[in-house]
Amino acid sequence: MFKAKVLIKRRPSILDPQGKAAEQGAKLLGITNIKFTRIDKHVEFVVDTDDEEAAKNEINDYCGKLLTNPNLEDYEFTMERG
Amino acid sequence: MFKAKVLIKRRPSILDPQGKAAEQGAKLLGITNIKFTRIDKHVEFVVDTDDEEAAKNEINDYCGKLLTNPNLEDYEFTMERG
Repeated sequence: MFKAKVLIKRRPSILDPQGKAAEQGAKLLGITNIKFTRIDKHVEFVVDTDDEEAAKNEINDYCGKLLTNPNLEDYEFTMERG
Repeated sequence: MFKAKVLIKRRPSILDPQGKAAEQGAKLLGITNIKFTRIDKHVEFVVDTDDEEAAKNEINDYCGKLLTNPNLEDYEFTMERG
């Protein structure tokens, strides 16, 4: 069994409207020094196999086919036996 | 100036429907060993002040009032001078 943690980020050139919205809200609340907000995804899951190579392949499949949009986002992951 | 990274997670007792949906999709694609998926938020931003105490206060305000729902989510952050 492996525990995987994935960080999925939009590419820096891609606008992040959710981050922009949060930042505008902050200004309205008097929180005035916040800049360059980016809201990304952090995904955790378990891969139920003991074969490290198979686990890596499943993580890459899961990320590439379901969790990310490969036109807009990049991902990186860490895994540990658990 | 400080760079802040915040990880916002639903409490373990709170259902994560987005994670469940991704997992069901994985099964349909033949990715069969994925379990316990949780999709959370990772937020990065800059706090444009040199006063560490003020920066911390802004981060806690931003997280507590805008980025998180305090009834469902917890957050933790790291900051570094940058």
